[in-house]
Amino acid sequence: VGPEALLLWKSKSTFTSFGVFFLQMGWGDLGAFGEPSKETPNLDQMASEGMLFLDFYTANPLCSPSRAALLTGRLPVRNGFYTTNAHARNAYTPQDIVGGIPDYELLLPELLKKAGYTNKIIGKWHLGHRPQFHPLKHGFDEWFGSPNCHFGPFDNRALPNIPVYKDWEMIGRYYEDFKIDLKTGEANLTQIYLQEALDFISKQQASQQPFFLYWAIDATHAPVYASKHFLGTSQRGLYGDAVREIDDSIGKILKHLQKLGISEDTFVFFTSDNGAALISAPKQGGSNGRFLCGKQTTFEGGMREPAIAWWPGHIPAGGVSHQLGNVMDLFTTSLSLAGLQPPSDRQIDGIDLLPAILQGKLIDRPIFYYRGNEMMAVRVGLYKAHYWTWSNSWEEYGKGIDFCPGQNVSGVTTHTQEEHTNLPLLFHLGRDPGEKYPLSFVSDEYQRAMDQISAVVQQHKATMVPGEPQLNVCDKAVMNWSPPGCEKLGKCLKQPESDPKKCFWPH
Amino acid sequence: VGPEALLLWKSKSTFTSFGVFFLQMGWGDLGAFGEPSKETPNLDQMASEGMLFLDFYTANPLCSPSRAALLTGRLPVRNGFYTTNAHARNAYTPQDIVGGIPDYELLLPELLKKAGYTNKIIGKWHLGHRPQFHPLKHGFDEWFGSPNCHFGPFDNRALPNIPVYKDWEMIGRYYEDFKIDLKTGEANLTQIYLQEALDFISKQQASQQPFFLYWAIDATHAPVYASKHFLGTSQRGLYGDAVREIDDSIGKILKHLQKLGISEDTFVFFTSDNGAALISAPKQGGSNGRFLCGKQTTFEGGMREPAIAWWPGHIPAGGVSHQLGNVMDLFTTSLSLAGLQPPSDRQIDGIDLLPAILQGKLIDRPIFYYRGNEMMAVRVGLYKAHYWTWSNSWEEYGKGIDFCPGQNVSGVTTHTQEEHTNLPLLFHLGRDPGEKYPLSFVSDEYQRAMDQISAVVQQHKATMVPGEPQLNVCDKAVMNWSPPGCEKLGKCLKQPESDPKKCFWPH
Repeated sequence: VGPEALLLWKSKSTFTSFGVFFLQMGWGDLGAFGEPSKETPNLDQMASEGMLFLDFYTANPLCSPSRAALLTGRLPVRNGFYTTNAHARNAYTPQDIVGGIPDYELLLPELLKKAGYTNKIIGKWHLGHRPQFHPLKHGFDEWFGSPNCHFGPFDNRALPNIPVYKDWEMIGRYYEDFKIDLKTGEANLTQIYLQEALDFISKQQASQQPFFLYWAIDATHAPVYASKHFLGTSQRGLYGDAVREIDDSIGKILKHLQKLGISEDTFVFFTSDNGAALISAPKQGGSNGRFLCGKQTTFEGGMREPAIAWWPGHIPAGGVSHQLGNVMDLFTTSLSLAGLQPPSDRQIDGIDLLPAILQGKLIDRPIFYYRGNEMMAVRVGLYKAHYWTWSNSWEEYGKGIDFCPGQNVSGVTTHTQEEHTNLPLLFHLGRDPGEKYPLSFVSDEYQRAMDQISAVVQQHKATMVPGEPQLNVCDKAVMNWSPPGCEKLGKCLKQPESDPKKCFWPH
Repeated sequence: VGPEALLLWKSKSTFTSFGVFFLQMGWGDLGAFGEPSKETPNLDQMASEGMLFLDFYTANPLCSPSRAALLTGRLPVRNGFYTTNAHARNAYTPQDIVGGIPDYELLLPELLKKAGYTNKIIGKWHLGHRPQFHPLKHGFDEWFGSPNCHFGPFDNRALPNIPVYKDWEMIGRYYEDFKIDLKTGEANLTQIYLQEALDFISKQQASQQPFFLYWAIDATHAPVYASKHFLGTSQRGLYGDAVREIDDSIGKILKHLQKLGISEDTFVFFTSDNGAALISAPKQGGSNGRFLCGKQTTFEGGMREPAIAWWPGHIPAGGVSHQLGNVMDLFTTSLSLAGLQPPSDRQIDGIDLLPAILQGKLIDRPIFYYRGNEMMAVRVGLYKAHYWTWSNSWEEYGKGIDFCPGQNVSGVTTHTQEEHTNLPLLFHLGRDPGEKYPLSFVSDEYQRAMDQISAVVQQHKATMVPGEPQLNVCDKAVMNWSPPGCEKLGKCLKQPESDPKKCFWPH
């Protein structure tokens, strides 16, 4: 999880810049979306100056596939960010993953480069950490951050600590050179990532170079941290402290754009890569408001995301949109802002949101909820049909792993994979955003809605060509033992022998 | 349930007016509080022009006792609005209730009268319907509305239809003269109540008479209705249509105050008498956001309420307050606005919120959660301790009556009355507003918080003098058979013989 931001900028005369904030925060974590403590004044102000999207989704209930989807404009099942090791399993890019973003995929920064944009990623890449997957090989010009999550500390024997890169080379590792104190929850990483963003924006403005900034920081992913200044400032505990720091950082970035006089030339979007991780709540996880369950699931809490578009002078202030949106749309929308066309040689799932953002139009489109290789559910209009339901296995649940704490809905949050393809479970998300009251199978309303949804699903399945799955094979040898630059730092570690295996994805 | 409004007005030179909107809406029903459809633009604007209270409570999870508490400034266990027929039971004023508001109680309008205020109640009185309980005998000068909920239609033999009063006399009955179409959900009652409010305000402004308006309409209580213009306009179904109509009405009332030039002299407060009735959701009930359970319970969903204070030119716009507030505070605050002192011969539970509203001060005070004759829980700061837990009985639950649908929390939403007085269940409402994760009994945090809470509870219990319970006896003979004025309308019904019994309160 993590809220994330996109910033895309083009100078007054010739270009527009973009930014995406993309982080792990839940729908319910923002004041503007109803968090009971209302501790996000900067994001709330961003919303009041821009447009709030109430029906915005991520492409996957887990981080790596969502990030791959944002940057390719394609569903993970197309761009390869999924597994076929077992049915309907969430998979991501741990240190021993062999796969990563395929060369065949065209990433947003690769395309923007052709239009003269300087592209920077700050934070977590998560699209593979082996050399061929390096972000600078996929269109980014600059990188400050890590290839994987900030899990740890590790012992550097069984498992290396996660490296932090500056562009091509590692400049240190988490817990070693970039401290995270798990006892106090203190770490100044968000401040470092904030400064990187401010500096990059200043540099681009000074040189009048259009930019695409992808601010995809690690916070608020567990283990949760905040810098000293923010510790203990929230009513919500450490998680809330982290949210406050992110909120403050985003406020500073927006004010920086304004100070430099380029806010009206910079399109900024804030959203999140998956729902809040309720298994970590309340101390290390956030809130999905009144939506069902969290990260890892295809219920609304797993995939409905907070989303704000900000572009002073262009987006009407205080707008609220019911447009069904998806992180993949940021790919297509950014291309549109840059005057570029999306690739025509492949299926692009993202749509151009500009008519919704600038003219308040509503574009009819479905939302597909995938878990690994399975389409679990689909939303059309206000109706959502579940073709498969699963929270996690009884075995995991018995160990205390609960993706829906305090939210068991009988027959819905099932602990076995339940197939409903012949008679999908149908919810009306307007009357029942919490997915608690399935419609009666014998009602006219059910029949009418399913007639429409079935046609959408049939069309989707008939034309679906899955990509080569990238998240099937794991190998200890591919871990971050000796990232480029390790020699200079004396931080190269001994790589074990290769022993490729099927990755184990429990849920 | 029902959102409700208070309006209190005094002219520039000599007086301030008050209004309370007091209705059955849940915390999560307003856009400003995070309802996912954001369909309350007028209430959201009221919040942005005024002050949002995030930690505001009702005095009881049921309507009659809450209304008695608002108007007396006292807990229902003091003012008699509770039952001792069984332990910890919710009770209200159905048609066969014998009791009502005791003469000994001093109601807000009685006190305001002494300061020259004209007091009007529009909507549901709910403090007893026998002649001695009539609102005009308890300080109100005008009344337009009903003594009981708009349940029905009844047959006028076993049960009479609910009368609608204009001042002293009935002017018709629900379903007969005031139509409610249960099939289509159409009724224009909210429009009638809106017009009554606008006319009253105009009249008072014209005559320069200060006023207290208590707009306590029936909607959104089930059976839910909306007028034709609003039917089908919400993404949330009929309940949402009703919310939209209320939102629209409140917007019109506020604009009317502005148009008449008296908005800066009128203090307006919006809140609700209990949490949304989740047993009626989603078609006939609202949302409590991420709070646990709903109406009838002492979990947050049953008693945390949306609350907005509005007084242009006095209350800083866009304020957000974490002051722990209670509907009983509206009694004390209104007296303060009118320059009056609360009675000193009795315990008043409400506090004056003006320092919180006007100067942003935080006043330390506990919140007590009563169910009938039992203090179930208490909140001190961000901690809430449950001394008793109960949702409803297994017997009722087995019949499908569920106050916590899709929200079972093991050991918390219990179906037997569970006593925890020796070791209360403790929640941190900042980290865990949904009351899902009880603190460990052996933690330092538990010990520290309970030390503080125990002292508060001990003091509260030591000084508690319960009032004579008013909701113990029921009798068919006291129903609305022949309200005053029935002769003129030919609507007097035959009263059965008196047969007083203990009322049955199942939960």
